[in-house]
Amino acid sequence: MTRVGVFGANGRVGKLIIDDLKATDNISLSSVFVRNSLNFSIDPSVMVSTDIGTFLNGCDIVIDFSLPEACESLLEAALKTPKPLVIGTTGLSVHQLNLLKQASESMPILYATNMSLGVALLNKLVYQAAAALEGFDIEIVEMHHKHKKDAPSGTALTLGESAASGRGLDLDAVRISGRDGNIGERTKDEIAVMALRGGDIVGRHTVGFYNEGEFIELNHTATSRNTFSKGAIRAASWLVNKEPGLYSISDCLEL
Amino acid sequence: MTRVGVFGANGRVGKLIIDDLKATDNISLSSVFVRNSLNFSIDPSVMVSTDIGTFLNGCDIVIDFSLPEACESLLEAALKTPKPLVIGTTGLSVHQLNLLKQASESMPILYATNMSLGVALLNKLVYQAAAALEGFDIEIVEMHHKHKKDAPSGTALTLGESAASGRGLDLDAVRISGRDGNIGERTKDEIAVMALRGGDIVGRHTVGFYNEGEFIELNHTATSRNTFSKGAIRAASWLVNKEPGLYSISDCLEL
Amino acid sequence: MTRVGVFGANGRVGKLIIDDLKATDNISLSSVFVRNSLNFSIDPSVMVSTDIGTFLNGCDIVIDFSLPEACESLLEAALKTPKPLVIGTTGLSVHQLNLLKQASESMPILYATNMSLGVALLNKLVYQAAAALEGFDIEIVEMHHKHKKDAPSGTALTLGESAASGRGLDLDAVRISGRDGNIGERTKDEIAVMALRGGDIVGRHTVGFYNEGEFIELNHTATSRNTFSKGAIRAASWLVNKEPGLYSISDCLEL
Amino acid sequence: MTRVGVFGANGRVGKLIIDDLKATDNISLSSVFVRNSLNFSIDPSVMVSTDIGTFLNGCDIVIDFSLPEACESLLEAALKTPKPLVIGTTGLSVHQLNLLKQASESMPILYATNMSLGVALLNKLVYQAAAALEGFDIEIVEMHHKHKKDAPSGTALTLGESAASGRGLDLDAVRISGRDGNIGERTKDEIAVMALRGGDIVGRHTVGFYNEGEFIELNHTATSRNTFSKGAIRAASWLVNKEPGLYSISDCLEL
Repeated sequence: MTRVGVFGANGRVGKLIIDDLKATDNISLSSVFVRNSLNFSIDPSVMVSTDIGTFLNGCDIVIDFSLPEACESLLEAALKTPKPLVIGTTGLSVHQLNLLKQASESMPILYATNMSLGVALLNKLVYQAAAALEGFDIEIVEMHHKHKKDAPSGTALTLGESAASGRGLDLDAVRISGRDGNIGERTKDEIAVMALRGGDIVGRHTVGFYNEGEFIELNHTATSRNTFSKGAIRAASWLVNKEPGLYSISDCLEL
Repeated sequence: MTRVGVFGANGRVGKLIIDDLKATDNISLSSVFVRNSLNFSIDPSVMVSTDIGTFLNGCDIVIDFSLPEACESLLEAALKTPKPLVIGTTGLSVHQLNLLKQASESMPILYATNMSLGVALLNKLVYQAAAALEGFDIEIVEMHHKHKKDAPSGTALTLGESAASGRGLDLDAVRISGRDGNIGERTKDEIAVMALRGGDIVGRHTVGFYNEGEFIELNHTATSRNTFSKGAIRAASWLVNKEPGLYSISDCLEL
Repeated sequence: MTRVGVFGANGRVGKLIIDDLKATDNISLSSVFVRNSLNFSIDPSVMVSTDIGTFLNGCDIVIDFSLPEACESLLEAALKTPKPLVIGTTGLSVHQLNLLKQASESMPILYATNMSLGVALLNKLVYQAAAALEGFDIEIVEMHHKHKKDAPSGTALTLGESAASGRGLDLDAVRISGRDGNIGERTKDEIAVMALRGGDIVGRHTVGFYNEGEFIELNHTATSRNTFSKGAIRAASWLVNKEPGLYSISDCLEL
Repeated sequence: MTRVGVFGANGRVGKLIIDDLKATDNISLSSVFVRNSLNFSIDPSVMVSTDIGTFLNGCDIVIDFSLPEACESLLEAALKTPKPLVIGTTGLSVHQLNLLKQASESMPILYATNMSLGVALLNKLVYQAAAALEGFDIEIVEMHHKHKKDAPSGTALTLGESAASGRGLDLDAVRISGRDGNIGERTKDEIAVMALRGGDIVGRHTVGFYNEGEFIELNHTATSRNTFSKGAIRAASWLVNKEPGLYSISDCLEL
């Protein structure tokens, strides 16, 4: 049984992880770190700590979804008490990223700003398809809820980069984001990345490869906002016995 | 058994109609009109004529996919020998359209530049959905083969007009054709009509209605280029016993 | 501003309705009925009542998602203090249903066990498509989460009945639920209703109509479990000024 | 410029290959073998031969879609005049397959009964996804035209085997082909392979992987019946400079 410590237990993802750990075999919650334990209620078998060292001693691996400065304190403490770390905190500064790399020399660290297993896999599949299906036209469609303010999504751009890279192309040079008017025939290399918006769609991405006679469409759909929590728990199970080093979510797919 | 006369029997659609009539019950080919019968070979039971009057006397209903001037000759002859007419010829002039209206006072005429039953139905369904699903966000995606030079497709624009009309909106005022950058939240009334291009896709249209908690997507896909032929034959079966008048393909849906 | 009273304010759907009313224009929460007000906390502008008569006087319309006996008490009180009612309580006995019909003679009542607007609309569209698209083959696919114990879903069967009814067929006589082996060509009237299971899919239904040359696919997807709450609020806005009578969710689509 | 010889030039796929070669760069038709050259008309720059040895001398590589005995004659002639061979003939006997293996010792031979690049790739992607996405539920849906007599399709079964093999499972032990009634919750390992039938669908296959929070769907759609022709031409371009040996269509994907 792998014993997990949750750092950032009061955050939105932290709470989901605590919840999701209850429903997972072979891995369970052993300790949480909170800044202030006053109003924090949890099963009495879990150690609640406001001291990072104590917290680290109470678990086999840490999952961190916190804020940059909190994550920095965690990394500094881990340099003294090495422990496998799954880090999903976003917005780390260059200094904090360097600290993370330094720490990864003495413990295994998996760092990812998108913990979705499915998206990591889709990127791998898209790269392969783009490389193998020479001459197929590539088109990408993403859809998100009506409140999303930027387009296309970061995930769609990353998928576009995977596709372009399978073709030896630079996405910036071939990406288009709309078509209107007498635009002429499609050029061979262009990759449309089209953004749909509406309702409460959490996230839907489709990468299509079209040829005469056949086409392939590879789709990922997020159905709830706790994809990151599930992904982090799976990453923890995978990381706990690894050698020191810096890992990504796609390493954990073991393709 | 309804006896069909095919006008424009040497054209691409004319040939498909002759072929498709073989596989259809209760309706069959009885006569064809061609300008020159020299190299035209067909089953001997079919009357091949180069005279429009003779041709008209040899059938119960005419299906016409020809050129504007030929269609004009047909309409003039039909004014003397009234006969139900299914007309799919495109590019008619104002004069020719007026002739068509005049002829429809003495015979039933169905005139349509897109004979696809499915597209006609989809327009009806989209109008109803737009009207009933108040507050749902509307997005349209069309896909066609890589050789198509204009975007979006005429069918996608017509679907957009059906949707806008169900909301009391003007498509031109709310249509967008791409999204890129920090564009802010989706506005309530906007309707994206996005055009994908690739491979040999004959035609695929999806109109989506997205709300919090649920969405509806209505899709039409053409799988071959003979949709028009099938639609015209069905239209002929429906039109043959109708009163004089001018009909459209959606009348024939009898919704 | 329509003032809504929520009956069953402690139930799962009741809580969602209270939440969703905050984000809706022209309609707001004015009173709630609870059996016991002790631990019930809500905005002080809302009247919390344990007496049905008082509760009814504090609103323009009632939305009820409670239990059969509670609903019965509500109906009895409404016979004395008539008020428009949206009733989503399931499992009503014959006696309770009769009481509901009797009450609908003196007030407008909308009764529905599935408040999804989208599903109600889809049933209408499927009926029309089945009737209009003579000769198209009909196939239905539904997908739900892995914990669902019965197949196909009730909604899929209702959609199948809408389709069969558009063709003048009896679903029981033409429905199949799987295909395996040397089964021969598809028969003209058969309607497959296929059930997929997996992950946490809330509910996805697709009804397809396939012909030579083209096909249409009509899809409904539930993205969260609060579709009923949204549907009930919209139903309330629609019902509040109606004449006495018994209404269904599809009346409220006004097709 | 690779010079292709088409063996079986009068067959359905042979004719498509001759046609498709016109639209392909860096590879062109140089010779055809027919049993009887009497009514065979082709561009005068192409050598038409009724003698296999002469035919082989007129090309750099052979594409063969013929019948088993004709293919046997080809293999025997090639043992004397080695030449790269792309063989798509189905129904080879054990003797003929042994001859093919023997020939592959002295020339490169690519042998495949399904030349679709897309399907070959999809099988690879499905295997990887099944292996990487531990715990995701797997469901497969295929759709074909209404005339198809067996279910599920051979391609769907092969995809099911790829999926099962990624999990270390035997497809026969876990495959189901329908769901109806009170069947209880989905079991962890079951793989549904559902067959839809309708219209003129050439072939559509979707393999889905469903988890809590996300799902992936990988789809292949054939849009015309000449997928084999395109695949064979691409295979020929790839094979022409390879070492002697027996190759499959997925070798040519170079994943």
